[in-house]
Amino acid sequence: MSNSLLGMPELTRPQINYLIQRANYWRENWANPPQPLAYRTVANLFFEPSTRTRFSFEMAANRLGAQVLNFSEAASSTTKGESLYDTVKTLEAMGFDAVVIRHKENGIVHNLSSLVEVPLINAGTGTQEHPTQCLLDLYTMQQHFGGLNGLSVAIIGDIVHSRVANSHLSALPKMGAHVIVSGPRHLLPADLPRPIEFMPVDAAVAAADVVMLLRLQLERFSDLALSIDIYHRDYGLTETRAQRMKPTAMIMHPGPVNRGVEIAGALIESEKSLINTQVRNGVLMRMAILEWAILGEQE
Amino acid sequence: MSNSLLGMPELTRPQINYLIQRANYWRENWANPPQPLAYRTVANLFFEPSTRTRFSFEMAANRLGAQVLNFSEAASSTTKGESLYDTVKTLEAMGFDAVVIRHKENGIVHNLSSLVEVPLINAGTGTQEHPTQCLLDLYTMQQHFGGLNGLSVAIIGDIVHSRVANSHLSALPKMGAHVIVSGPRHLLPADLPRPIEFMPVDAAVAAADVVMLLRLQLERFSDLALSIDIYHRDYGLTETRAQRMKPTAMIMHPGPVNRGVEIAGALIESEKSLINTQVRNGVLMRMAILEWAILGEQE
Amino acid sequence: MSNSLLGMPELTRPQINYLIQRANYWRENWANPPQPLAYRTVANLFFEPSTRTRFSFEMAANRLGAQVLNFSEAASSTTKGESLYDTVKTLEAMGFDAVVIRHKENGIVHNLSSLVEVPLINAGTGTQEHPTQCLLDLYTMQQHFGGLNGLSVAIIGDIVHSRVANSHLSALPKMGAHVIVSGPRHLLPADLPRPIEFMPVDAAVAAADVVMLLRLQLERFSDLALSIDIYHRDYGLTETRAQRMKPTAMIMHPGPVNRGVEIAGALIESEKSLINTQVRNGVLMRMAILEWAILGEQE
Repeated sequence: MSNSLLGMPELTRPQINYLIQRANYWRENWANPPQPLAYRTVANLFFEPSTRTRFSFEMAANRLGAQVLNFSEAASSTTKGESLYDTVKTLEAMGFDAVVIRHKENGIVHNLSSLVEVPLINAGTGTQEHPTQCLLDLYTMQQHFGGLNGLSVAIIGDIVHSRVANSHLSALPKMGAHVIVSGPRHLLPADLPRPIEFMPVDAAVAAADVVMLLRLQLERFSDLALSIDIYHRDYGLTETRAQRMKPTAMIMHPGPVNRGVEIAGALIESEKSLINTQVRNGVLMRMAILEWAILGEQE
Repeated sequence: MSNSLLGMPELTRPQINYLIQRANYWRENWANPPQPLAYRTVANLFFEPSTRTRFSFEMAANRLGAQVLNFSEAASSTTKGESLYDTVKTLEAMGFDAVVIRHKENGIVHNLSSLVEVPLINAGTGTQEHPTQCLLDLYTMQQHFGGLNGLSVAIIGDIVHSRVANSHLSALPKMGAHVIVSGPRHLLPADLPRPIEFMPVDAAVAAADVVMLLRLQLERFSDLALSIDIYHRDYGLTETRAQRMKPTAMIMHPGPVNRGVEIAGALIESEKSLINTQVRNGVLMRMAILEWAILGEQE
Repeated sequence: MSNSLLGMPELTRPQINYLIQRANYWRENWANPPQPLAYRTVANLFFEPSTRTRFSFEMAANRLGAQVLNFSEAASSTTKGESLYDTVKTLEAMGFDAVVIRHKENGIVHNLSSLVEVPLINAGTGTQEHPTQCLLDLYTMQQHFGGLNGLSVAIIGDIVHSRVANSHLSALPKMGAHVIVSGPRHLLPADLPRPIEFMPVDAAVAAADVVMLLRLQLERFSDLALSIDIYHRDYGLTETRAQRMKPTAMIMHPGPVNRGVEIAGALIESEKSLINTQVRNGVLMRMAILEWAILGEQE
């Protein structure tokens, strides 16, 4: 009955709809949630730093009654050369009910999943997958627009290195949404799969129901021969450019935001922004995911 | 109904008395405390190392039924440039019920408090404020002496850099206590506000009901052109100097103690010492503070 | 009624049997354990990195209803020079119910135990003691073989630096087991206490009911003028060498394993291996130890 969450391609449309509906159930039961995961224990294995995703999982687990144990690489015996496989086998033998993994390597959770019994949850791997962020974004769009089918989503920025973007390139078309990508040419995939369309930034902003900005890795700027100011002017959502948005269009960003780089600071908390709603929904969606991973689908 | 704890100047005398009375309530209900914070979650954001304050908050929260999530700077995305404001907004959106902050910058919790809704608790900022330590000290004095009004408190050491001392310089006079300061001249404030009196160490020790030693930042010694031995002889509470204390006078120290620097090792656990009582009361006072911050005053 | 766990020499045979029987009780009540440690708080003080032992204690405490607070050296005020004694006194004053300590110094937990009231649990100190690992190993042998009396246990590897081995050299003879040691001569104790016997590796493997490999400190290899390959060939449990084992003999290893060094990778999860069972039993034995330390023996 238990499930691993590996990546968006592995999820069916009904599974995605189930998780969205279940996140909504947890929203409606926020104040006094039932505790289906009482006596359960979840391990957070984060091999890359992340406050928000780790806290979001921990908050979600706690509200379901589960305990969370945090593994941080520096303080652990990974420094003694123990492999991730051996670590997860150890956690499995100890009786952990689920293992949440963030890692810089593509495919590492997929590879592990065939070797262990304990449910694994991909909390972001490499440049390819960040399914929990993708699912909370889908829930946020569904909640705001009432549906995903026919929605136009413009994803703007460093697509090629973004695990969030790559999860969406798989998931949004499956849910019937139309995807536009935009940003510096050398940060876009060489071959875009068919239904996905490239547009220059101004056109993308004007065409979309959702303008989704991606976090730029500032440490990459020197490599890119880009300045932050020029990036903001040419590819960021400036206040001027935001005026091109459709009246009903909304802004999203997976966070943490670089203010004044991908987006003007004043827009982050504007009424056109869903950014704080995304954070809030992250806890709810991770409640849905943890319950589904450990207990399977509920009736 | 919720409250932020910013600093001692912001608290009224009735509020301080309320918190002292409430800490005492939790002392009387230590073994089987009610759990008014069940389902609540507190974030500990410590940007400076501290075992005792962090553990004290965590113990306090747990006994009230709350969960605590710990953020430590090294392992977090602050290293990615996310500002404290954005971090706290994120925690607020996630549904945290209170955020405990320790930071080296003066005024940072005050500044934040006007920008967020979530209750903030100042767990020590800059050189100016450490209100939870101050409150637990007030509770300890109240408990031992039966009242604060008319009590003489000598604060000895590096006043100018001590957040504990500066909180007391605001709070003790408000509670009717008389404050004496002592220590090396260049570590005292240039202008002492009126009711506060300077005395040489021997006189201060002899005059006080409470001899409060401050932790010396050993890393500052080379700057000060002071040796530890000379500091101990001239400004520390040596066993000889302690004999000048009034028979009813008591020793306090916010900890952690540098044995043989501010105080002779043998005095720390002597019957004239309230140092361990302060630690114990720290948990009780932080229970009172967390409850007040999240739920407001109880009837 | 409370107890400290200092080392194996301090435990009587009936105490060891009690803890084994109690670990088994917790195995039988895994799914819905009673929570005798509700409202209790345990501090994990780990001054050496360890994922498995720390997680094992944390899992054990959580299942008994207790909260665990983790102290990691880097983030703490030990960096401010606070001594371990002062730290533990502080935890005691805060009301912690037990303190779990891992430290590189031999005897440090013994020394502390005469100075504090709070129960201490040795989670591995220096090269001499790792009683919780030893006890979980004894439980694993008891469970698999039905008893310890008369069992032959071959401990192979770096005996002299192994806290696990040294705990077993004290405990196994007390329980009526026969101990064989093997490995490179310069990694064996100069004087073996009487009932303990040295054998060359092949003979030890053939004679034993339990073949217990020790983790090799890889960082020590350059000192030892040994290569990993030669160590594996001469002292490791290769697949070939494992064929000398008695049909009923079993493999144990305290973990984490260096695959292909002390043991061939293929043997770790073979049917002759108890290594995962040891991990599982570690949680159960630590449940027994925490309950015994805080509440004393149960009827």
